[in-house]
Amino acid sequence: MKQEKFEDSYHYKLWHSSEHVLAHAITKLYPGKIKLAVAHIDEDGFANDAHWDTAPVIEDLEKIEKEMKKIIERNLPIRKEVVTYEKAKELFKDNPFKLEWLEEIAQADKEVTVYWTGDEYVDLCKGPHVESTGEIKAFKLLSIGGAYWRADEKNEMLTRIYGVSFKSQEELDDYLKRLEEAKMRDHRKLGKDLDLFVFSEVVGKGLPLWTPRGATVRRELERYIVDEEIRRGYLHVNTPDIARIQLYEKSGHYPYYKESMYAPIEDEGERFMLRPMTCPHHFELYLSKQRSYRELPMRIAELAQLYRYEKSGELSGLMRVRTFCLADAHIVAKPDQAKQMISEVLDLIEDIAKTFGLEPGKNFRFRLSLGDRADEKKYFKDDTAWDFAENVLREVLDERHAEYYEAEHEAAFYGPKIDVQMKNVLGKEDTAFTVQYDFVMPKRFKLNYIAEDGQEKEAIVIHRSSIGAIERVMAFLIEHYAGNFPVWLHPEQVVIIPIGEDQKAYAAQVATAIKEAIPGVRLSIDEDNNTLGKRILVSQQQKIPYMLILGKQEVANNTVSVRLRTGENLNGLALEDAISRIKEKIATKAIDL
Amino acid sequence: MKQEKFEDSYHYKLWHSSEHVLAHAITKLYPGKIKLAVAHIDEDGFANDAHWDTAPVIEDLEKIEKEMKKIIERNLPIRKEVVTYEKAKELFKDNPFKLEWLEEIAQADKEVTVYWTGDEYVDLCKGPHVESTGEIKAFKLLSIGGAYWRADEKNEMLTRIYGVSFKSQEELDDYLKRLEEAKMRDHRKLGKDLDLFVFSEVVGKGLPLWTPRGATVRRELERYIVDEEIRRGYLHVNTPDIARIQLYEKSGHYPYYKESMYAPIEDEGERFMLRPMTCPHHFELYLSKQRSYRELPMRIAELAQLYRYEKSGELSGLMRVRTFCLADAHIVAKPDQAKQMISEVLDLIEDIAKTFGLEPGKNFRFRLSLGDRADEKKYFKDDTAWDFAENVLREVLDERHAEYYEAEHEAAFYGPKIDVQMKNVLGKEDTAFTVQYDFVMPKRFKLNYIAEDGQEKEAIVIHRSSIGAIERVMAFLIEHYAGNFPVWLHPEQVVIIPIGEDQKAYAAQVATAIKEAIPGVRLSIDEDNNTLGKRILVSQQQKIPYMLILGKQEVANNTVSVRLRTGENLNGLALEDAISRIKEKIATKAIDL
Repeated sequence: MKQEKFEDSYHYKLWHSSEHVLAHAITKLYPGKIKLAVAHIDEDGFANDAHWDTAPVIEDLEKIEKEMKKIIERNLPIRKEVVTYEKAKELFKDNPFKLEWLEEIAQADKEVTVYWTGDEYVDLCKGPHVESTGEIKAFKLLSIGGAYWRADEKNEMLTRIYGVSFKSQEELDDYLKRLEEAKMRDHRKLGKDLDLFVFSEVVGKGLPLWTPRGATVRRELERYIVDEEIRRGYLHVNTPDIARIQLYEKSGHYPYYKESMYAPIEDEGERFMLRPMTCPHHFELYLSKQRSYRELPMRIAELAQLYRYEKSGELSGLMRVRTFCLADAHIVAKPDQAKQMISEVLDLIEDIAKTFGLEPGKNFRFRLSLGDRADEKKYFKDDTAWDFAENVLREVLDERHAEYYEAEHEAAFYGPKIDVQMKNVLGKEDTAFTVQYDFVMPKRFKLNYIAEDGQEKEAIVIHRSSIGAIERVMAFLIEHYAGNFPVWLHPEQVVIIPIGEDQKAYAAQVATAIKEAIPGVRLSIDEDNNTLGKRILVSQQQKIPYMLILGKQEVANNTVSVRLRTGENLNGLALEDAISRIKEKIATKAIDL
Repeated sequence: MKQEKFEDSYHYKLWHSSEHVLAHAITKLYPGKIKLAVAHIDEDGFANDAHWDTAPVIEDLEKIEKEMKKIIERNLPIRKEVVTYEKAKELFKDNPFKLEWLEEIAQADKEVTVYWTGDEYVDLCKGPHVESTGEIKAFKLLSIGGAYWRADEKNEMLTRIYGVSFKSQEELDDYLKRLEEAKMRDHRKLGKDLDLFVFSEVVGKGLPLWTPRGATVRRELERYIVDEEIRRGYLHVNTPDIARIQLYEKSGHYPYYKESMYAPIEDEGERFMLRPMTCPHHFELYLSKQRSYRELPMRIAELAQLYRYEKSGELSGLMRVRTFCLADAHIVAKPDQAKQMISEVLDLIEDIAKTFGLEPGKNFRFRLSLGDRADEKKYFKDDTAWDFAENVLREVLDERHAEYYEAEHEAAFYGPKIDVQMKNVLGKEDTAFTVQYDFVMPKRFKLNYIAEDGQEKEAIVIHRSSIGAIERVMAFLIEHYAGNFPVWLHPEQVVIIPIGEDQKAYAAQVATAIKEAIPGVRLSIDEDNNTLGKRILVSQQQKIPYMLILGKQEVANNTVSVRLRTGENLNGLALEDAISRIKEKIATKAIDL
């Protein structure tokens, strides 16, 4: 199946045209008080960035919507015109932003195109658009924010208005419903409400600090991944997060990948780099000895802290950070082991996803990203290797009857890959991580082994993650569960709530019994003086899976009344039954309670 | 008990004089072919650094020893003389190294002293020395190495000759025996033999790469520490390894601690630093919310990766590295909780040490490091706070009847501390890590809490480790165990050795049974075609705790013959008995097998 790029979709055109209508409307409403800068269209909606003499407030959106509605109802045609550089310069002579773009278009010697809405509104734009404004059947402006011109902190801060539009009112209603749900689940909001992580201005942007509660979830996640990988033959190692610049020159990351790397650290005439990738480190470890075919496949794995410098304007919660911990691995193998290895990696990915309650097809699917034999600049030239590697990946996917589609021109420089495409709460698909076939690095690093016949041969490498970056997984899972972590992951698994003073001694007994039966259980006793209702509410807000409520009856009968965070009540459960239920749900990493 | 500094000891004087005898001897033996540079005296022995026209080889040491013996037998007096700068310049006019020192002494306007051995040999030296060469009753030159002039890579590489000397032949013999043992146990040697860690030139000096085996030991160690701390109420967090320079300006580490920090990373006009300390990160986390007395004591803990730039000449195996992972914590507490907190920390330290088989008094002791009220530059001025804090620490140590001694002028800037002094294989004592009382940082960071009375009050902080830096602990434990890790820590706990082809099926059964009974057990089957003797030898060299040898009899009786790495044999053990023995030793973290 071939992928339709979002940029080629009808929706892209509709949103693009909606932005023009928005820009059109505000120039009509606030003549001379706005300088339009740029449109942004992505899978989240359309946005208009502009300089406003007086920044709009949320109440203004209604007025703007009304004006947009008028433009839409007039069903104005949207028309492309190719113009000369001079004509364009004349058209946008009062707009420094457009002139800056125009200058760049001229420098690059590209065609200058503008789009007209009726004869009233014109924008410097490369399109594409729908035929006329009437195709926008339903729309909504969502919010006002700020954005730096060209996403650069050094530039002016512009006003950004966000919106979405659809072919029907039903689609808009559905979207808004899901948006509301997504807002409730936003990991930045829940991260705060549930006290999972914080940011500090003085520490720096994009550098999360995990609180005890958040760090607990991370630790459970990390130990699970590591143990699961070890069980499957991965060799977990530990390599330094910095290295001499020479290492990245050897791998080619420097200067090729320089833009994403932090600047060098210079000491005693040496330059050290924060690593953006783990591969060269693992390759050096592989090279520390002569290797035999008996040692292959060698699955070198690490929870590796990586550093990539993102522009401050691009940072967002845990999704876009400036350092992250990747569940990374490099499988050094003989070419004839590749297929088996990749299949095992997909097994691992699917099994881990299943543990989290994620289903292939529904929550994620695979994308086979292929190279282009003709593009020697973007893809390493070796047609035979590309054919072989692409076939290996395709065969593995076919034989597994995996949910996947193919995408051209999406491979990495050094080989084709399988991308794991995760769907978020809004249904938006993103590449979470990849499984990469690499026939280039083994040449650069001379990743050889002594074969059965005593000859030195070249290995191949599979770069892979099993779950991606811990920060992103956490963001994803917080939203997926809406904070209702399965009990094995939850920072606080059980809260014991004695109703009154008389039940405190029993509460302590219950706590001891649970701790003895479930070593490492995360449990608290809520002896606050608040009412029972208030205490249940607090625990409910913290989404604690099990609340054990102890009153007179429970003490008398050696029972507990369990309130699940789902609201379900299991009254008068024998203490040992409650314990074995909790124990089993933790041990089996159950999603339900 | 007051500490005698090594520099004040008789041994220091003896070794210093021995170095003069060594320098004296080589100038006699190789006239005009040597330029003496500098002497080094430390707890490992004495050393002479010199420029040699032709570098000496190990065979030359015997000749030099003979010459030294002659000088010793003549029992020449060693005499101090205070000289003028001009006279010293004349005395050392042919020696550029001495002239360089001399220049610095003159610049600093210090007294110039020289020491004469008889009337034959003179050195620029501030002493002290023994009375005469005859006091050296036994000595030995140990090795020849290289060292940069003033430990700076950019300078000339000099020849260094090492030696030791004693008051009696018995002491020397004893020392040499222990030295031999220490060599066998050297973690750099065992690290290689047991394949625990490697270094890579291209990654960089002082940046260890942990192999799968080494990383396994680390992981066991780390999980043990983390779990043990959590059990005791520590809140493990996760904070970034870099931060804006402003954070370290706030804490005062920058520029005060600048010499030990890596150079800044500059991006988008921001300066980021690799963290040398965890404290400011934990303080920012503390400050992310308003805190109440109910939350105190708050034990914020982390396995924190730290970065300190050591000069390349000072790097050594895992003992001196350029990045390390500290089992760190900061206990924010009310002043009246301090005593209890410190006592709990010492409990933790002693319990962990006990797990490793380390005994207070024998393997380590505490040092109470005190400040100096008069030295306002080195110690924060607040006499009341110093008195209070020193008393707290002393009282805790006394009440516990801890093995400790007091050392003046050894405190940190911001308060007194308890140092954990570990003894290595040679009996040399080093500070492994510390427990630090801090009344300064709470002021700088405003680490306050809302007290019972509703008032905002200032907390105190205890900086502490429970085990130190993982790299140093590993170095220490490798040497302490001579590679014979207890089974819970060993990277390969069990090897199954079927004697012949007929026992392979049974070997697989045994493996399955063990894996089922002991989840996560690290086990291998050695089916190599080598002889049984060879295979046992290989496992013995890897110091694998349990070798299960399977022959005909074992198959017939469903037994295993266990060979311990100690050489002890447990023949014909019922399989389930062997399994429960191994399981119990792992679970209890037993030192014995």
